[in-house]
Amino acid sequence: MAGNTFGTIFKLTTFGESHGVAIGGIIEGCPAGLTLDFSAIEAEMQRRKPGQSAIVTQRKEEDSVEFLSGIFAGVTTGTPIGFVIQNTNQKSKDYSHIKDTYRPSHADYTYDKKYGVRDYRGGGRSSARETACRVVAGAVAKQLLKEIEITAYVSGVGELQLTKDYKDLDFSEIEKNIVRCADPVMAKKMEAHIKDIRKQGDTVGGIVSCVVKNIPIGLGEPVFDKLHSELGKAMLSINAVKGFEYGSGFKGTKLRGSEHNDAFNSDGSTKTNYSGGIQGGISNGEDIYFNVAFKPVATLMQKQQTIDAQGNSIEMQGKGRHDPCVVPRAVPIVEAMAAIVLADFWLLNKLSKL
Amino acid sequence: MAGNTFGTIFKLTTFGESHGVAIGGIIEGCPAGLTLDFSAIEAEMQRRKPGQSAIVTQRKEEDSVEFLSGIFAGVTTGTPIGFVIQNTNQKSKDYSHIKDTYRPSHADYTYDKKYGVRDYRGGGRSSARETACRVVAGAVAKQLLKEIEITAYVSGVGELQLTKDYKDLDFSEIEKNIVRCADPVMAKKMEAHIKDIRKQGDTVGGIVSCVVKNIPIGLGEPVFDKLHSELGKAMLSINAVKGFEYGSGFKGTKLRGSEHNDAFNSDGSTKTNYSGGIQGGISNGEDIYFNVAFKPVATLMQKQQTIDAQGNSIEMQGKGRHDPCVVPRAVPIVEAMAAIVLADFWLLNKLSKL
Amino acid sequence: MAGNTFGTIFKLTTFGESHGVAIGGIIEGCPAGLTLDFSAIEAEMQRRKPGQSAIVTQRKEEDSVEFLSGIFAGVTTGTPIGFVIQNTNQKSKDYSHIKDTYRPSHADYTYDKKYGVRDYRGGGRSSARETACRVVAGAVAKQLLKEIEITAYVSGVGELQLTKDYKDLDFSEIEKNIVRCADPVMAKKMEAHIKDIRKQGDTVGGIVSCVVKNIPIGLGEPVFDKLHSELGKAMLSINAVKGFEYGSGFKGTKLRGSEHNDAFNSDGSTKTNYSGGIQGGISNGEDIYFNVAFKPVATLMQKQQTIDAQGNSIEMQGKGRHDPCVVPRAVPIVEAMAAIVLADFWLLNKLSKL
Amino acid sequence: MAGNTFGTIFKLTTFGESHGVAIGGIIEGCPAGLTLDFSAIEAEMQRRKPGQSAIVTQRKEEDSVEFLSGIFAGVTTGTPIGFVIQNTNQKSKDYSHIKDTYRPSHADYTYDKKYGVRDYRGGGRSSARETACRVVAGAVAKQLLKEIEITAYVSGVGELQLTKDYKDLDFSEIEKNIVRCADPVMAKKMEAHIKDIRKQGDTVGGIVSCVVKNIPIGLGEPVFDKLHSELGKAMLSINAVKGFEYGSGFKGTKLRGSEHNDAFNSDGSTKTNYSGGIQGGISNGEDIYFNVAFKPVATLMQKQQTIDAQGNSIEMQGKGRHDPCVVPRAVPIVEAMAAIVLADFWLLNKLSKL
Repeated sequence: MAGNTFGTIFKLTTFGESHGVAIGGIIEGCPAGLTLDFSAIEAEMQRRKPGQSAIVTQRKEEDSVEFLSGIFAGVTTGTPIGFVIQNTNQKSKDYSHIKDTYRPSHADYTYDKKYGVRDYRGGGRSSARETACRVVAGAVAKQLLKEIEITAYVSGVGELQLTKDYKDLDFSEIEKNIVRCADPVMAKKMEAHIKDIRKQGDTVGGIVSCVVKNIPIGLGEPVFDKLHSELGKAMLSINAVKGFEYGSGFKGTKLRGSEHNDAFNSDGSTKTNYSGGIQGGISNGEDIYFNVAFKPVATLMQKQQTIDAQGNSIEMQGKGRHDPCVVPRAVPIVEAMAAIVLADFWLLNKLSKL
Repeated sequence: MAGNTFGTIFKLTTFGESHGVAIGGIIEGCPAGLTLDFSAIEAEMQRRKPGQSAIVTQRKEEDSVEFLSGIFAGVTTGTPIGFVIQNTNQKSKDYSHIKDTYRPSHADYTYDKKYGVRDYRGGGRSSARETACRVVAGAVAKQLLKEIEITAYVSGVGELQLTKDYKDLDFSEIEKNIVRCADPVMAKKMEAHIKDIRKQGDTVGGIVSCVVKNIPIGLGEPVFDKLHSELGKAMLSINAVKGFEYGSGFKGTKLRGSEHNDAFNSDGSTKTNYSGGIQGGISNGEDIYFNVAFKPVATLMQKQQTIDAQGNSIEMQGKGRHDPCVVPRAVPIVEAMAAIVLADFWLLNKLSKL
Repeated sequence: MAGNTFGTIFKLTTFGESHGVAIGGIIEGCPAGLTLDFSAIEAEMQRRKPGQSAIVTQRKEEDSVEFLSGIFAGVTTGTPIGFVIQNTNQKSKDYSHIKDTYRPSHADYTYDKKYGVRDYRGGGRSSARETACRVVAGAVAKQLLKEIEITAYVSGVGELQLTKDYKDLDFSEIEKNIVRCADPVMAKKMEAHIKDIRKQGDTVGGIVSCVVKNIPIGLGEPVFDKLHSELGKAMLSINAVKGFEYGSGFKGTKLRGSEHNDAFNSDGSTKTNYSGGIQGGISNGEDIYFNVAFKPVATLMQKQQTIDAQGNSIEMQGKGRHDPCVVPRAVPIVEAMAAIVLADFWLLNKLSKL
Repeated sequence: MAGNTFGTIFKLTTFGESHGVAIGGIIEGCPAGLTLDFSAIEAEMQRRKPGQSAIVTQRKEEDSVEFLSGIFAGVTTGTPIGFVIQNTNQKSKDYSHIKDTYRPSHADYTYDKKYGVRDYRGGGRSSARETACRVVAGAVAKQLLKEIEITAYVSGVGELQLTKDYKDLDFSEIEKNIVRCADPVMAKKMEAHIKDIRKQGDTVGGIVSCVVKNIPIGLGEPVFDKLHSELGKAMLSINAVKGFEYGSGFKGTKLRGSEHNDAFNSDGSTKTNYSGGIQGGISNGEDIYFNVAFKPVATLMQKQQTIDAQGNSIEMQGKGRHDPCVVPRAVPIVEAMAAIVLADFWLLNKLSKL
């Protein structure tokens, strides 16, 4: 529980603040001999980066990753993969006026109390900028996992909820719309809604759903490091996440055992999949699916009352380059964290039996 | 991610199968000098143990814990606290008939595939019996945390949902009813419902809610080990859990930022608490509250079709000592895991600043 | 660095004080499917236990290990192996007279200062009794490693030093003498010397050497967890150890590179082996050999001046059941720790490349 | 045992190869509020860097460290400190001729066998260049530890051994000579010897001794993470190290208990210090002192026979920019690793008791 490291074997450690020189990280435990597709990594970065569409922050960050080690002639060497992403958007402006401001529902207050000091030039370490490093590691993990398919999409924006079963959705639609909703009709509504919310200087929450297919049987390390416990931790560690459920989730609490039990077919597969592909904390080969709840972004383009470090009441207002809704850009982050969890368990599972 | 260890400094490692000689564990990192109240530990064990009421399994297990080390003259010495709980209910009967049976929505199939061998005399390592060890460590953690109040209660049994805000509930009601619901009227309904379900040989899911009061500011280790990430992992690692949400949770995704932001009072406390007492992964001193979703118990007292290890279709039926609904007994387990997480972060936070 | 855990994948966590109810531990990460030879484990315990010969402590401890989990029908199941060893020698006598005594060159003083409290009925956690748990885990590790041969022997007792190269020794001699020296002539001298030392109420130090043969290439995880770094840590964690050297060791510092370099044969083996079987922290397939220095036992059968917790000068004298020289009983402990290190690296190395 | 991380709370993770773009690392767990003296960090880097004197490698590397995060306005913020050191000496020359060469007593062979691939443009990850990152973290640790004084010096070069007790040495002499020997007369001899060895195209081993003064009582986490076990591991993880001994070390094995025991003064200090400042794995407040054995550098400026990856016999010769003796430059590395170990234990010890 070092705070900046995730994983046991396939392991990511990150550093960096939003307004520092650079952010970056170290990926350990990636086996030697993996030929990396750098354009695929770059493509994942593009899915997360600011300024990619009309409904996300218009901040400009190139977010290009530079690999410093662990790769030779395009192939992983088994040594740690160090990487940095420059903070090109860093401005040498004067931040002293916000130095003492505690923004509502941000981490300014808690960081200040915990550490007694903070980089006040923005979110600092608590900024979602840090998730760019997760996307880098997730992109490497995806290449390691090869045949495992991890697909996330937006299934809720405010009151707009996509209620269809994931099996009834066409995943090829996801990247065709800027919301990253798997249903094109709902996508249009969501896009309009986000634009409307933005016009009001407000923000709205949402839900990202994720489906994992072609998963080998055996991933997960009970009793504490169950597959879904780590997936849950991974998702909850993403900025703005308030909840996680997998398989039947919260709705499953209303069911009876006779409805909820997944009967076996003779080949070990199951007729239903309320279990969400995980039984006893270990993957059973069925699809894994889960939902991740994101709160509305705390930075508003409207006036808010708040306090400064001395407890004085002050008025503040966000400046114009923030996301009105975080879920479109959260889609690649959810996939990345899922990939990191699965890569780690995939490696660990090679040691389960003689 | 060793699988059997939870925590970094205050750390629990457990062992044991449901039908082995004993289960037990090692608690590391409890500071020296803590005078233990053994009757309080025993009381927590009683809240979890089988046979405690008419709506839980009637299996008889004494579940008394024997401490083997780390305590001298009633005081912790800073050395690891080893403990065992004998499996007195262990029967020397013949289990060979169920040896090859894969029970639906249990972990029989996944353990067999992952490890190539399993203790088939019951749930083995995947049995919820293992949670008794968590309750031991949680009871020690609670004593370490002293003034922090951790209170869990049942807020849902099937369709019966307690919708009141936790602030409108009288927590002194919880232990007055066998469901451990904080509302006496709802408790009656839930009790009747569970009895009815049991009569049908069926089971039902439910929700446990938990509230933490008097929490110091500063607990949590971003960016990966946020306070809520670890709480989420802890809860998701409990048997039968399918979901976790804190603060505004899944409902919060429907709100706008202007509704959801928690405005500050001049003392740093907040006027509302959609954040659930955690901002940026660090406790802010407000109450922490969260919900944990439990699926219906998989063992039914009715016939089910299933398969054996050879893929043959067979018929099976649970025998009479299982819980029709897990949530009443899950209440102390949720509290225990919360206490373990908080104890660890409470210690870690002492190292945050000079 | 939890203090009571050793290893990453194959991992031992121990608990227990010399005068508590029992000591014990949990072995994690042993792959499922290993058929255990319990008599071999018992035999290792016999090599370490008190009272085994005329030159070791005459204290009586049965040291029989009881396995509580992780094994079914004699085969490991992949779940944690919990075990306990009862402290049958525990006496309900009055220890209050030594309660405040700080014995010279023991850990009484440092434990008291660090923890503010200690189990004063003997060495407590700092007693070498704890090493019995290491022997249990090491015996399991040896069975996992199968073809790897780990052999330790006494090569020094006080001034008596066995200077022969290990290749000129007959390892079958080791268990034929009570000193566990690999040379029968020297063994006699050492035995006589230890008996003489004991008669004087004194103690003496010594050296244990260890050789590992049939080691696969590739074990070790640079840059910090080099094979020899972990072997060194493992040995230095054994009670009374003051030094560790491998391959050419301290003598190698006097050589020139042109003398010390190990030239290759065409098959990758080396003509000499100053490297001690490890290059760059990774095993190269040659024999690994190392020396471990043990200080003289601190408990003397003669009067010593010391202080109590209040700083008063007091006179004390050890009672008659202590080892005059620790190395004969340290031999199986050195082997056990080597086996634990190698088992862990053997498993980790399976993940080095695709 | 991730391989690239050292420490539990104060933790260093490193990356980088000798001929890659850059090396670097992440320092975690440094408490917030530490005002850093960057010139002191720079000074440590200068002590380690190539080209600093006539008796070390004449390779030119600036070795200037760039901090990327975790520091704001010169003060640590509690977030991870990311840093990079550019490999300015990196040459875009053709290395294909040495691609398949396995240099004797280097790690070429073992890396190739373990990972199946390696960066053949030099030592890669196994190069001592990696230790520059340790010096950065050690320099930060030293500032955290403030009043603790860590002093290393050269006490042996080949047959030239400084036999004086460290108490009889004047540590202010160390940096006055290019060998970093604490005795000016011996320093001259050592310098001449190294120059002579270099002329012959050969190399020689040596010993670095280290003394830690003003150490608080209580550092160390038995039973596995004893203070000297971690110091030993730390030293053994440095390139070319073959042995570690502390306190009486290997010589102590020849002593009797009645000679070796450290009698107490009434204030808890000891009259002698064979224990080397550590009892039961915990610092007792006396000086800690230890020796570290370094083998002769494997790269020779003379012809050697070796093999290539196909097992063919080939002749090779080192090119002119290597150290004839590693110990002068190893002095700051030994200090750095000691500082990292002590910083970690200093933080952990704050959690030992209530």
